[in-house]
Amino acid sequence: MIFTQGESRGNLTKHDLCTPALILDLDMFESNLNKMASCARDCRFQLRPHTKSHKCPVIARRQIEAGAVGVCVATLSEAEVMAEAGIPGILITSELVGKPKIERLMTLAKRHPDLMVVVDNAENVRQLAQAAEAHKVQLNVLIEMDVGSHRTGTAPGMPTLELAQVIARTPSLKLQGLQAYAGFAAHIVSFESRKAGSEEAMAKAFETQHLLKKHGIDANLLTGGSTGTYNIDSQLQGAIELQAGSYIFMDLDYRRIGGRGSDLYEDFGCALTVLSTVISRPSADWATVDAGLKAFSTDKPYAPECKTVGNIAYSWGGDEHGKLNLTQADRQVSLGERLEFIIPHCDPTVNLYDCIYAVRGEKVEAIWPIAARGYIPY
Amino acid sequence: MIFTQGESRGNLTKHDLCTPALILDLDMFESNLNKMASCARDCRFQLRPHTKSHKCPVIARRQIEAGAVGVCVATLSEAEVMAEAGIPGILITSELVGKPKIERLMTLAKRHPDLMVVVDNAENVRQLAQAAEAHKVQLNVLIEMDVGSHRTGTAPGMPTLELAQVIARTPSLKLQGLQAYAGFAAHIVSFESRKAGSEEAMAKAFETQHLLKKHGIDANLLTGGSTGTYNIDSQLQGAIELQAGSYIFMDLDYRRIGGRGSDLYEDFGCALTVLSTVISRPSADWATVDAGLKAFSTDKPYAPECKTVGNIAYSWGGDEHGKLNLTQADRQVSLGERLEFIIPHCDPTVNLYDCIYAVRGEKVEAIWPIAARGYIPY
Repeated sequence: MIFTQGESRGNLTKHDLCTPALILDLDMFESNLNKMASCARDCRFQLRPHTKSHKCPVIARRQIEAGAVGVCVATLSEAEVMAEAGIPGILITSELVGKPKIERLMTLAKRHPDLMVVVDNAENVRQLAQAAEAHKVQLNVLIEMDVGSHRTGTAPGMPTLELAQVIARTPSLKLQGLQAYAGFAAHIVSFESRKAGSEEAMAKAFETQHLLKKHGIDANLLTGGSTGTYNIDSQLQGAIELQAGSYIFMDLDYRRIGGRGSDLYEDFGCALTVLSTVISRPSADWATVDAGLKAFSTDKPYAPECKTVGNIAYSWGGDEHGKLNLTQADRQVSLGERLEFIIPHCDPTVNLYDCIYAVRGEKVEAIWPIAARGYIPY
Repeated sequence: MIFTQGESRGNLTKHDLCTPALILDLDMFESNLNKMASCARDCRFQLRPHTKSHKCPVIARRQIEAGAVGVCVATLSEAEVMAEAGIPGILITSELVGKPKIERLMTLAKRHPDLMVVVDNAENVRQLAQAAEAHKVQLNVLIEMDVGSHRTGTAPGMPTLELAQVIARTPSLKLQGLQAYAGFAAHIVSFESRKAGSEEAMAKAFETQHLLKKHGIDANLLTGGSTGTYNIDSQLQGAIELQAGSYIFMDLDYRRIGGRGSDLYEDFGCALTVLSTVISRPSADWATVDAGLKAFSTDKPYAPECKTVGNIAYSWGGDEHGKLNLTQADRQVSLGERLEFIIPHCDPTVNLYDCIYAVRGEKVEAIWPIAARGYIPY
C-alpha cells in the first residue's frame, strides 16, 4: 500500500481519485456510529459490532471509542489484523476447525487473553482443549446455538446443555456464554414480521440460557442481533449483546427491509458508495461506467443505485463495466462524468477493495486500509 | 504479504493451509498453458492472453515463456503491476477516461513504449493526445469496436473509420489496430451456435479493417477472441490475435458451453479450486464449510461444485459459510474434512484472494501473489 493509515491527504479531493473507488461519507458515517452508540447507552445494551462489514482497524477503533466493548470478527485473519491494531475484546463468530487454524488461534490467544471463539461441536471442543493445554492457554469459548439459520450451531435446549457440560469439565476452556445469531431474521421485510422472527429466535436462546443456569452453568454473555434487529433485540426481557455491523455503512439490501412505520429502513443512512467514471457512450440511451462485478458484490438481486443522477438503470456489463440505461434518467451524463452508486450489499463489496476513501464533502480526509480483507496466508 | 514470490515452500502441503484457499493444480495448469501455446504455433496466431483472469505476474511470465507476444489487462493497476514485473507487450483493453487515469497512464507509457490502450471516443482521443504531447510520449492506441456486446466501442464501418482518421492526424498517437472483443459470443452454448456468433462479429471487424486500408490507414493488429472461441477465431480468413484468459484455470461457466462434438467444454481442464474445511455438521443431511460468498464470486447462476465428494449440493450460507446438502452425496463427510470446489467463474473469484497456492499432488510447490488484485490507490 502506498499510503499511511490516517495520514493527511493534503488537498486531495474525490475528483483526484482513480475509479472505481470506495467512498465513505464521513458525516453520515459518524451520524450512524453515534446513533447506534447512544441507542446502546439509552437502552443499556452492550455493543460488540461485527467488523466483517468493514475489515478496517481504523473503523474498529472509532467503534471502540464510541463505547463498543469489543468487536466481532468472522475469520481468523480478521482477528489477527484487529488484534495487531490493538483492538480489544475480539469475538470470533465462526467455528475454527482443523489443526492449521487451531494452531494460529493459539498464538493469538496467548497474546490476547480476552479473545473469544464460538464452538458447536464436542470434537472441535476436544481439539481446542488439547491445543490450549499444550500452549498453556485458557481459551474463552461461547457455544453457538442454531436459532433458525441452520448453518452452524447446536440445537437449543439439551444439545447445548450437553456441550456446555463438556466445556465445564475442561480446565483449559472457559465458557463465557452463548451466541445466538439469527441471520435469517436480520433481513425479514417489514418491522413487525422481523420483530416476530427475532423474538422467536431469541426466546430459544433465553430458554437455553436458563436451562444451563438450572444445571449450575453460567453462560452470562448472550450475543447476537444485527443492524436489522437492533431496536427489537434491545427491547427484549433479557440482556443481549449486539453484533450489528452494517449500520455504519448501510446498503440497498438493508434499506428495503422497512423501518418501524416506514417502507424504507432509514434508521441509518447510506454512507458508503462506489465512485465510477463514464468511460463510454455507445449510444444516446446508454452509458458505460468502469465499475462492474469486481467493483460491487453480486450476491443480492439488486443492481447498484445511482446517487448522482436519478432514474438511471444499472446492469452488469462484465468484470470492469456497468451498463447504464438512460432512457428514464433525470438528465444526460457525459463522457468522463463521475457517478456515485449506493451498493447492493456492503460486506462483500468492501472485501473487494484495499482502502476506503473517507471524505467530507468533496475533500478526502483520510484513506483507511481495509487491512483484514481477503484471507491471510497461510 | 508474508511470503516471497516463487520461494520454495519446503514441505508445505495442502493439509497445512488455512482455508478457504485458492488452489492451482500445476499439472493441469501446465497442460492448459501448453495446449493453447501449441495451438497458437500450429494455427499461426498470436496470443496475448488476458491477465484479468489471474492478475498474477508469475502466471503472466509463464505465458510469455510459452510464446505469448504480450498480455492484455483490464485496468490501469493491472497494467502497472504487470509492467513493474517486467512483462512486455501490455494492452489495456478498457478505455481510460478522465484526468487521474490519463496522468497515471502517461507515467507508465513513458517507461514502457510498447504499451497500448484502446479508445472509442474522439473526446477521449483528444485528451489522451494532449497528455501524450505534454509528456512527450507517442502513445499506441487501438480502436475498440462494438461487435455485439454494446457496452463500449465504436460502431463498425464509418464511425470507426472517422475515429481512425482523427487518430491518424494526431502526431502524439499511433494507431496500432482494432480491438473486436465479442464477449457475448464467448459463452454461447453449443459449438456451432458459438461459431456462428463469433464469425458474424469478426466479419464486421475484418470489413472495417479493409475499409480503413482502402482509406490509407493501416490497422494491422486485430485483437479479440476468448477461451470459448479460440478454435473458431483461429480458423477465420484473416489474422486475429487472441486475448483468451480463462483457459489456464477454467470454471463451471465455461465448462457448460459445450465443446466441438461434446456437451461439456473440456478442451482445457479445471485447474483452479477453492479448498475449504467442514466446520459444522448441523444435522445428518447437512454440513457447513468455511467458504461462502467471500470465497467464490456469485455473479453466475451456478453453485460451486464439490470435486472431493460427488453429488454434494452447495448453497450460499453467508459471507464465510457454504451449506452442503448431503442427501444425495456419494458418501458422508466429517467435521474437519477438507473439500475442494470447482468455481463458478474464475476471474472475479481469483480477485477475492491475495495468493494462489500452486500445488503438485498434495505438495505446495509455490505461493504466487495475485499482485494486481483490487484497485491500486489512488
